[in-house]
Amino acid sequence: MNPPPFPPITFDQLCYRIEGKPVYLNSGEMHYFRVPKADWSRRMQLLKEAGGNCVATYIPWLLHEPEEGQFRFDETADWLDLEGFLQSAREAGLYVITRPGPYQYSELIYDGLPGWLCEGYPEVLARDVRGKIFRPSSVSYLHPVFLEKVRLWFEVVGPILAKYTLSKGGPVAFVQLDNETIGIHEWFNSLDYNAETMGFGKENGRYPTFLTQRHKNIRRLNELYGTKYTSFVEVEPPPVTGTGSLTDIRRQRDYFEFYLETIAEYFKVLGDMLRTYGVDVPFMHNSGNPSMNAYFQTVVEKMGEGFLLGSDHYYNLDQNWAQNQPTPQYAARVFLSNEMLRLMGFPPSVLELPGGSAADWPPVTAEDARAAYFTNLALGMKGHNYYVFSGGPNPPGAGSTTDSYDYGAGISAKGEIRPLYEAQKEFGNFIRQHPGFLTSSRVYDCRFGLDFDLARSIRYWQDSEEGYYSGARAIEFLRTGPLTTALCASLSPVMCDLGADDWMAEVETPLMVICSSSMSREKQKRLVRFIQQGGKAIFAPVIPVLDENFESCPILVDFLGFSVEAASSDKLARPSFDPVKNVFGAVHWIQAWPKEARILGKDELTGKPIACQVRSGEGQAILLGLEWVHAKREHEQLLRYLFGELDLHQKVACCNPNLWTSLWQSEEGSMLFILNLLTATMTARIQFQGLKGWVDAGEQTIPPVTVICLEFNKQDESV
Amino acid sequence: MNPPPFPPITFDQLCYRIEGKPVYLNSGEMHYFRVPKADWSRRMQLLKEAGGNCVATYIPWLLHEPEEGQFRFDETADWLDLEGFLQSAREAGLYVITRPGPYQYSELIYDGLPGWLCEGYPEVLARDVRGKIFRPSSVSYLHPVFLEKVRLWFEVVGPILAKYTLSKGGPVAFVQLDNETIGIHEWFNSLDYNAETMGFGKENGRYPTFLTQRHKNIRRLNELYGTKYTSFVEVEPPPVTGTGSLTDIRRQRDYFEFYLETIAEYFKVLGDMLRTYGVDVPFMHNSGNPSMNAYFQTVVEKMGEGFLLGSDHYYNLDQNWAQNQPTPQYAARVFLSNEMLRLMGFPPSVLELPGGSAADWPPVTAEDARAAYFTNLALGMKGHNYYVFSGGPNPPGAGSTTDSYDYGAGISAKGEIRPLYEAQKEFGNFIRQHPGFLTSSRVYDCRFGLDFDLARSIRYWQDSEEGYYSGARAIEFLRTGPLTTALCASLSPVMCDLGADDWMAEVETPLMVICSSSMSREKQKRLVRFIQQGGKAIFAPVIPVLDENFESCPILVDFLGFSVEAASSDKLARPSFDPVKNVFGAVHWIQAWPKEARILGKDELTGKPIACQVRSGEGQAILLGLEWVHAKREHEQLLRYLFGELDLHQKVACCNPNLWTSLWQSEEGSMLFILNLLTATMTARIQFQGLKGWVDAGEQTIPPVTVICLEFNKQDESV
Repeated sequence: MNPPPFPPITFDQLCYRIEGKPVYLNSGEMHYFRVPKADWSRRMQLLKEAGGNCVATYIPWLLHEPEEGQFRFDETADWLDLEGFLQSAREAGLYVITRPGPYQYSELIYDGLPGWLCEGYPEVLARDVRGKIFRPSSVSYLHPVFLEKVRLWFEVVGPILAKYTLSKGGPVAFVQLDNETIGIHEWFNSLDYNAETMGFGKENGRYPTFLTQRHKNIRRLNELYGTKYTSFVEVEPPPVTGTGSLTDIRRQRDYFEFYLETIAEYFKVLGDMLRTYGVDVPFMHNSGNPSMNAYFQTVVEKMGEGFLLGSDHYYNLDQNWAQNQPTPQYAARVFLSNEMLRLMGFPPSVLELPGGSAADWPPVTAEDARAAYFTNLALGMKGHNYYVFSGGPNPPGAGSTTDSYDYGAGISAKGEIRPLYEAQKEFGNFIRQHPGFLTSSRVYDCRFGLDFDLARSIRYWQDSEEGYYSGARAIEFLRTGPLTTALCASLSPVMCDLGADDWMAEVETPLMVICSSSMSREKQKRLVRFIQQGGKAIFAPVIPVLDENFESCPILVDFLGFSVEAASSDKLARPSFDPVKNVFGAVHWIQAWPKEARILGKDELTGKPIACQVRSGEGQAILLGLEWVHAKREHEQLLRYLFGELDLHQKVACCNPNLWTSLWQSEEGSMLFILNLLTATMTARIQFQGLKGWVDAGEQTIPPVTVICLEFNKQDESV
Repeated sequence: MNPPPFPPITFDQLCYRIEGKPVYLNSGEMHYFRVPKADWSRRMQLLKEAGGNCVATYIPWLLHEPEEGQFRFDETADWLDLEGFLQSAREAGLYVITRPGPYQYSELIYDGLPGWLCEGYPEVLARDVRGKIFRPSSVSYLHPVFLEKVRLWFEVVGPILAKYTLSKGGPVAFVQLDNETIGIHEWFNSLDYNAETMGFGKENGRYPTFLTQRHKNIRRLNELYGTKYTSFVEVEPPPVTGTGSLTDIRRQRDYFEFYLETIAEYFKVLGDMLRTYGVDVPFMHNSGNPSMNAYFQTVVEKMGEGFLLGSDHYYNLDQNWAQNQPTPQYAARVFLSNEMLRLMGFPPSVLELPGGSAADWPPVTAEDARAAYFTNLALGMKGHNYYVFSGGPNPPGAGSTTDSYDYGAGISAKGEIRPLYEAQKEFGNFIRQHPGFLTSSRVYDCRFGLDFDLARSIRYWQDSEEGYYSGARAIEFLRTGPLTTALCASLSPVMCDLGADDWMAEVETPLMVICSSSMSREKQKRLVRFIQQGGKAIFAPVIPVLDENFESCPILVDFLGFSVEAASSDKLARPSFDPVKNVFGAVHWIQAWPKEARILGKDELTGKPIACQVRSGEGQAILLGLEWVHAKREHEQLLRYLFGELDLHQKVACCNPNLWTSLWQSEEGSMLFILNLLTATMTARIQFQGLKGWVDAGEQTIPPVTVICLEFNKQDESV
């Protein structure tokens, strides 16, 4: 038996592996239906020279089934020759990620769905809460007619892919299911309320079934919703925006989580179909952006092994994006995204890393893209796919934005090499020269808790009635407040999943938990156990008082003896701490604190405490009733002070808050990334905790929008 | 008689003048209550060395009336010594802009209002539509109790200022009324609905009186509102968001325009008070940002001569601002803002030009600020005030964000000179060395119509029922679509006021008019006259069908013979024109066109026209049923093509869409500004229409985030 020439790729939280050996997935998107066939192998070669080991392509349903039931994969029409493309990749020695949809987007009309489907079967379209179609190519994923059409498409494309998977000696290493799922709904301001799909009002309908499973009996649901339904079948979907009452939030949360379960079911259906047709490689999916990652937790759970979630990390797709180039704000989002993917068990993979932009203007320049690549790498990226590595002419009538899909890519539509390609090559060389990076550890000195419920709550809990602090505000605060402050303050944070136990044994590294007024019972208990075990934690800006059902749950309140008035209060205050006065922010007033608590900060005007510390055996907790958007030196001083009270020892010392660092270490040595994502040259003296003691990295001057990496072999380090 | 040592400053649409001589107003903000008195004269000297001829300061009511009725202007307390500061400025030879409020903001607690007022007189606070207080320091401007307290404050501060005005030999050249008025309401998502101030339900109340004047009889109002009121006194204010029906939009527009009239009344009251106390210099006001400029048209009309409106042009006040540094998007906003101010009759003045930021992070760097200054200058700024030129410690307990008000200014709180100061000095030197700039003309080759009604409609007409294209969308389209496309396409646009006649005689320069579905009867008639006179115009993306009362008004429709279905349609289309195919955008379907119209572009799929041209005597009009966000080369090609059909002759030729230009000419020669507001070096060959023929400015390489100016004396130009 001949061994398959392409060994399979495995992956875990740390990295991808080929035959057990750590490997970076360096992929570039190149569409056989755009790049001229005559140039496939040359561009693939260029991709390899830039460090690529994989090529990715959509397989547009739109093109291959132009009329219902009329499939074409015409080897004589270059732009339909999927198999020829797979063979070329095989010859070039590149793995392949195929993305057969159903959705593509990819600036194709109807998002890559066949026109006959969107125009001829309006029943499959998603509906807003009033029952209206909101977009002619946004479907209701689980609509039976849609799924049947998908099945017929997969019945054709599945066996083709199956012929070329690794086990058959082919190059296909991954198959992506759908594309940026949920986007077709969320980006047009609606979830899906298609009555047939969701089964509103039907016995055994999806929605009543979900509610039955969740609430068991209707009295319980009525209690939570403040309603008077006599059966689950009667329950209507909630309006998109509620009054902010807890009953409304519960309904909206239920609907959103129900919706996410339908998404998981959709993935399962797609995956099962493709398995039926012989596709035996892992499935992939790309969350449309970092904010959506948490939506896919249900998918990840349902799909189990053989599924990998990545995310798309664009910084500029048109002039209305915040920022034209990678910025520190982008880096903070990238950090959170990569950490979420890691916490879900995956090697952080950016499945669409900007290799240009659908817009010619503002341009994605080589300089900016290079900084974005190294930013992602510095913050944990273990694999990427340039979207796109190279484009070409759109098939006749298929492009929604242009006839020539150039994308400003490294290799132009016509095949010319651009400066962006050189940046990609430099990046590829860097990765190739640093294989140890893959198994290095990111050095950290503090931890931030991640509550996936909170990350999802942006869709159902923006505001709430007075006295409660919403999930959307809390997750925004985490990113724009303490996390950004930490990075400016030269702290080295890492995230841990409050829904898991794996971080709890490490009691010596302090943890900061940004809370909304709601936290699941289980997570509250876990945090209590952590402190009881000797853990040290800061809670801000409130302490949860509700559980996951938004019912009273004072587990942490009772344990710590604190309570906070979670009002979005504009009352005047002067939050002042021993080492730092008048810290800018919104105060959440601490209403109760244990007699033995140590007051770390007070409002000078009222004398009320703003930060209190309590001890519980070996453990310690600080409550900080302050919310801020990182802006001031005082914020850095405050965070350093509070973490310092919990015995944090900084691992990196950088005196310039405009330079962010990310330190990686293995037994061989240290790699120190320094990020200057501002538009002026920045300078700092930087030192870090090396393997054998403090290392002086010297005075560093970093040009604008530039990321550098300093390397220190174990032997080079001087104490 | 001794002539006053400081001659008065006059101003017109072109520039400021001292004794008739054009002068640039170069002001720096420096607060006597922050900058230590011992350093006033040194810092004033530094300001002068940086080209400054004026210093500006708030006069915080908060500090001078700490308890009600207890005024203090203590010459022994340095930070209360207003008169000492005015004397210092006089000695330094600097004009002074004073800003006595009532509002300041300035990162002072209660926005600079006395705490006793905000806390002790809740009746003066603004209310949201439900009658709730939404912010403890947002007042209802015309509330009688508030105005009485203001009067008592002005009674004290007014005479002090009066002593120091130019006519008395003092340095006070301008007095600013209030500060960023409307901001305290708009930025907290409400207008003011204080029932007492607005007079809801009261005979002779402001609201019923406004409605009576506007609609004359209640039947007319009922017809417009779809209501059944029996008297004006009964009419309640409309809900904040309506259904999008025309009746709702009419009500909301009326309320907003009523609100703006109360703002004008507020300014009149403030101005009259100060005149009573002897303040005889022109008044000023700073619109809080470019989007608010149009709100002040009522104020400008009511105040008449002796009043000047400027605007604040920040690009980054905290991490949540779009963009950390000046960008092309910022430049487009600046262009619109300066043009609006000019069209209102003022020398475009940036009364808060970033001289740092309230946030330490992201930083306002010298490099970025320099680019912002030259961007503003290139786009017509004729005066500015650095906010702030220098700060210092906040008076005890007065700072809302910090105790040391450093602001990252050119001169630090402690008095050190920063790189930002050098950028300001360079900018000042440039201005000093180019006095001819003040009376030069900006060269243009195309015009965009500005409808002030449209610019204001963002507050009352975001969305509307199907078939109508909203004002908010239209004004956004103007900026992000055609205007940005024009600047990328190396066109040189200028704005003209559709509400005035002054631009009409110039028929040879084509005009583009971005329309919503509503345009006043008077403006529609003016546009018809323009074309009848031989003018050439492009209308996009719709033709108005309603007048200012949102009643049917087909003046333009009847004249041109066009009609458009103004739907926000997602229907698939391939908008294609002779020289450019598949232009990305949303099509507004042209429903009718005259038989003789020339079809310039069609949707390839349906064959329907997307652009049509008609002639009317010497005049010509093109209707373009396409809406876009500038993104693609095709957009540039399309705009050049359409303007070309109307005989536009480009004045500047620059092949790189990432470099924007602004050309100024006088009899002496040409000044060509080239803006690279992206983060990579950009290169282009640039030529322009000089005084004697085309001038080749050669191959230009502009570093990232940099604005340069090339100068060509008349004699240097080669044909």
